[in-house]
Amino acid sequence: MIPKKAKSKLRIIPLGGLGEIGKNMTLFEYEDDMFIVDCGLAFPEDEMLGIDLVIPDITYVMKNIQKVRGIVLTHGHEDHIGALPYVLQELNVPIYGTKLTIGLVENKLKEHNLLRTTERISVMQGETIKLGSNFKIEFIRSNHSIADAVMLSIWTPAGIVVHTGDFKVDFTPISGATLDLHRLAEIGRKKVLALMADSTNVERPGYTQSEKMVGAKFEDIFANNIDKRIMVATFASNIDRVQQIVNAAYKYKRKVAVIGRSMVNVVKTASELGYITIPENTLIEINDVKRYKDDQVVLIMTGSQGEPMAALSRMATSDHKQIDIKPGDVIILSSTPIPGNEKTVSKVVNELCKKGAKVIREDTHVSGHAAQEELKLIHTLIKPKYFIPVHGEYRHLQKHTELAMELGMKRNNIIIPSIGEVIELGPDNIKVVGNVPSGQVLVDGLGVGDVGNIVLRDRKHLSQDGLLIVVMTLEKESGMVVAGPDIISRGFVYVREAENLMDEAKAVVRKALDRCEDKHIVEWSQIKTIVKDDLREFVWQRTKRSPMILPIIMEV
Amino acid sequence: MIPKKAKSKLRIIPLGGLGEIGKNMTLFEYEDDMFIVDCGLAFPEDEMLGIDLVIPDITYVMKNIQKVRGIVLTHGHEDHIGALPYVLQELNVPIYGTKLTIGLVENKLKEHNLLRTTERISVMQGETIKLGSNFKIEFIRSNHSIADAVMLSIWTPAGIVVHTGDFKVDFTPISGATLDLHRLAEIGRKKVLALMADSTNVERPGYTQSEKMVGAKFEDIFANNIDKRIMVATFASNIDRVQQIVNAAYKYKRKVAVIGRSMVNVVKTASELGYITIPENTLIEINDVKRYKDDQVVLIMTGSQGEPMAALSRMATSDHKQIDIKPGDVIILSSTPIPGNEKTVSKVVNELCKKGAKVIREDTHVSGHAAQEELKLIHTLIKPKYFIPVHGEYRHLQKHTELAMELGMKRNNIIIPSIGEVIELGPDNIKVVGNVPSGQVLVDGLGVGDVGNIVLRDRKHLSQDGLLIVVMTLEKESGMVVAGPDIISRGFVYVREAENLMDEAKAVVRKALDRCEDKHIVEWSQIKTIVKDDLREFVWQRTKRSPMILPIIMEV
Repeated sequence: MIPKKAKSKLRIIPLGGLGEIGKNMTLFEYEDDMFIVDCGLAFPEDEMLGIDLVIPDITYVMKNIQKVRGIVLTHGHEDHIGALPYVLQELNVPIYGTKLTIGLVENKLKEHNLLRTTERISVMQGETIKLGSNFKIEFIRSNHSIADAVMLSIWTPAGIVVHTGDFKVDFTPISGATLDLHRLAEIGRKKVLALMADSTNVERPGYTQSEKMVGAKFEDIFANNIDKRIMVATFASNIDRVQQIVNAAYKYKRKVAVIGRSMVNVVKTASELGYITIPENTLIEINDVKRYKDDQVVLIMTGSQGEPMAALSRMATSDHKQIDIKPGDVIILSSTPIPGNEKTVSKVVNELCKKGAKVIREDTHVSGHAAQEELKLIHTLIKPKYFIPVHGEYRHLQKHTELAMELGMKRNNIIIPSIGEVIELGPDNIKVVGNVPSGQVLVDGLGVGDVGNIVLRDRKHLSQDGLLIVVMTLEKESGMVVAGPDIISRGFVYVREAENLMDEAKAVVRKALDRCEDKHIVEWSQIKTIVKDDLREFVWQRTKRSPMILPIIMEV
Repeated sequence: MIPKKAKSKLRIIPLGGLGEIGKNMTLFEYEDDMFIVDCGLAFPEDEMLGIDLVIPDITYVMKNIQKVRGIVLTHGHEDHIGALPYVLQELNVPIYGTKLTIGLVENKLKEHNLLRTTERISVMQGETIKLGSNFKIEFIRSNHSIADAVMLSIWTPAGIVVHTGDFKVDFTPISGATLDLHRLAEIGRKKVLALMADSTNVERPGYTQSEKMVGAKFEDIFANNIDKRIMVATFASNIDRVQQIVNAAYKYKRKVAVIGRSMVNVVKTASELGYITIPENTLIEINDVKRYKDDQVVLIMTGSQGEPMAALSRMATSDHKQIDIKPGDVIILSSTPIPGNEKTVSKVVNELCKKGAKVIREDTHVSGHAAQEELKLIHTLIKPKYFIPVHGEYRHLQKHTELAMELGMKRNNIIIPSIGEVIELGPDNIKVVGNVPSGQVLVDGLGVGDVGNIVLRDRKHLSQDGLLIVVMTLEKESGMVVAGPDIISRGFVYVREAENLMDEAKAVVRKALDRCEDKHIVEWSQIKTIVKDDLREFVWQRTKRSPMILPIIMEV
């Protein structure tokens, strides 16, 4: 599928993160060297029933396993590191990332028993690593909704490629410093071959607000609710957000309890590595919350997306072991619903309101992604010859293309890629030269990739109308029915209330079997088809439903 | 459950539309008279797998059927009229509504063969009807995202109750005139006992914009895309919106094709009844679209919510018989996604963009519900003694309560009701005095209420992990297995790729059966339990999945 490679061409092969939000993964290939940027997961679409998560297809990587020099991570969000435990089981290569990113990855590897076998290399913002004989990768300080994020400047014999990862431009960040604009300006003078930039927020005009804005809002809320118990739900990974809650708590002399497994883990890792500073005697255990008065505590917890198993949802449904919501509690939702979660979040808010809590959702969150003016700044600093919009659904990539063109880039110098496409870059050209296998690998329990379209189609069918099982035993010699037919149903109608229907259905099956006998039909597959067709028709006429019908024949 | 009724008390019993969006239905009861306001459906929640729609529980109404004088409709939206075809099958009472509302109801009744048996009474805005000896109901001209909407002023011996229905205040409406503020002011002088008001948009500050704003935007888009084919997707029921598209089309000398069954039906009814005016020679058939150049046509269609079977989605997936999207097409989405539909709409937009269409979504829609300042206007004009917020989730009702209190109402004079609660109103008091049966009746195919929690729980289980059927035939005398055990699976793993797993599973079942034999267990239910437990444990260990396991035993 891919033409023989021209010498001295760089190949960029996105394996995820395009035409979708999530499972970011991009392969860079030059002669005999390959490396991967990010290795993320995606959450299942509604139609992927029963699926836990989705990871990229790495068939092409595995075919070239001897060339792969490592995986380079831009930051520690799930959509950039979440597929590692699955990918590393097949592809054992070194992992490069900043200290916090590696720390979060190590938590994951521990859970999956992969820590011992995986080489991790911690890289400082500003450092450059060498991968194989063709790649040097510079880690550039960046801003995002997680600390220690980087952009990558990828130095290849074909030229420089800048990959922004997820970013925003925060002039007043909480931890670290502003995105390294000076370094980007320097690199921009070196004739950058291509820019790959985050498209998530390209539809938003203006600038994304600073993380600091949220801190100011927290202080307001604390000041105005001095006698109330305050709870804040946010993303576990947003360490700067947690820092700001801790700061407000400290100022108002409140103790802080951290609730929810992922929140506890992240805060632990971040404070061990120095990315969050919690004053002494500030943290308390969840079991000790009850020993303090309402105006002496702040609870920081997971569940801001309405996740049913997370702390906040459990409290909303009175299902949390240690904490009960009571009238007067002030609950800050410090996040906006990710598309698809709106209704779930709304349900949790309604339940909290019913319990008499005051829920505050306005101005309590800022995005971690660059809006239009920030994107323009980066395009202008980098001045790339070619542009490849990344991280976004198709309409985002399209819009980002228009933004680049507004800044003077020619349409021919832009590729809107799809996953699996091989983009070949030379000093004077960019084009898609072929395709490699790519797509969605579904993870369900321990199974990686064993749930495919047929299984999903069956789950969908079962979920809509349930099933009817028709079972009977035939005698081998005579072909006569000696037991059954019995009909068992699940997810169709509640049988106790539909006895007549089931009796009639049985009669329909018997008639079908009689017909088979009259016509001397003995082939099981034929008998099954006839029973199935008759029963389907009967059930449709009577109920306008189409349950899955499974005829089972046994023989004695 | 309800105490013996005090003489001269009005009872208001909401049967839907509270703590939820949809299935609006409220019962009014005074001595021996009852009537119902609205009779709507709700769309199923995500967890209601396979359910088509949800209607209110009318058990209490049916118990009092001899008292029910009629159903009064505020407007023709599905969440106010959609349950009629189901409710009327049990409760044959006259339907009162404005001309357009009755017209839309008649379309429904036709489909369900109920037209002949149902009495419909068309009432003009401004008219008053008498129901039983205790109720007079005045239809007050209102504004909403469908024409011919009314507020109701309900005159009872206990006092006046004003029910707003869904409304906004539109000073420049497209059809009809502004909400009858003069009449509301007059009624407000008569000491109104209670106000029941729409809470849908109570979280939005300021005023909802006029429908006319959208028309201006349409003209802009038409002017800026003079050579392009223009398509507009919107709600079928928004006749004023359709009128504005037709107006823009006429101005720019374009023909109009109406696409999508519900859109065609509504436009037909509305133009027959005079609620939409389409100039002669403007409408064309969908099959004739191809005979016109791009700059000569406008297509108006359904599917603005990403509904998979509607016109726009079919076009997006190249699945529409007559219309293909092509590069350059301008597609206006004239609606905002209803909560829960965000991702579906987003998918359709991405597909349209991939086909090269330009999708316009900004400023192309206004809400049909009153924002805070409009609500304050109505509260202030009506000056009710008591207030009952309606139409909204709990947090909306709560917020509406706060708004009323800001205007000076005492908390004790406000009831935040739940469905099924009996609110009793006297000249000097309001209180909840009991409960009647209420809830969600699920409609699935022809079945109304026959899908309950057990069926839904099974569908959920089947949808997540599929099922394993274990079937075997025993000999009656000996209890020996003479056929099977066989294992059949659906929605679990793709069997061809999991032969080993299925073979091992069969071995596990055989072992379980041997154990039963050794222990002389002959009770089928016990055998089934043992097989199920062993198999469940084996499957969990091997896959971390929990399919439904159905052991079936036959006997010869």
